[in-house]
Amino acid sequence: MKARVLITPKEGILDPQGKAVERALPALGFEGVSNVRVGRLVELDTNDPDALPSLCEKLLANPLVEDFEVEVDEK
Amino acid sequence: MKARVLITPKEGILDPQGKAVERALPALGFEGVSNVRVGRLVELDTNDPDALPSLCEKLLANPLVEDFEVEVDEK
Repeated sequence: MKARVLITPKEGILDPQGKAVERALPALGFEGVSNVRVGRLVELDTNDPDALPSLCEKLLANPLVEDFEVEVDEK
Repeated sequence: MKARVLITPKEGILDPQGKAVERALPALGFEGVSNVRVGRLVELDTNDPDALPSLCEKLLANPLVEDFEVEVDEK
């Protein structure tokens, strides 16, 4: 089945990529956007969705500085 | 309000990062995972969610090789 892992920098961790996006926006004419955080999105097919949190901790995310969220599509 | 932009490589576009994850998995003891695609996740606060698709096309995603999806949290 299909699953998605959403990985974001933890609250309070510096996110230079997000800051760069935030600073670029006014120059492009977009106002009123704040708190931009850039993370990663991993899509995959798996037979064993219960293994995903452990997979995230070991390979996909760095649990020291990143939070992750697993979404499984039950179809 | 809070919004999330999910950016993934288009179908058919080579995704070396996804391939690298896929190859690393068996060595870590995870079997049965396939079609790994690695994209980006952008979280932000905005006053004007209608501007997000245009913002994605101009700054966050590369529409030639990436698809994006906008999720707005109406709270």
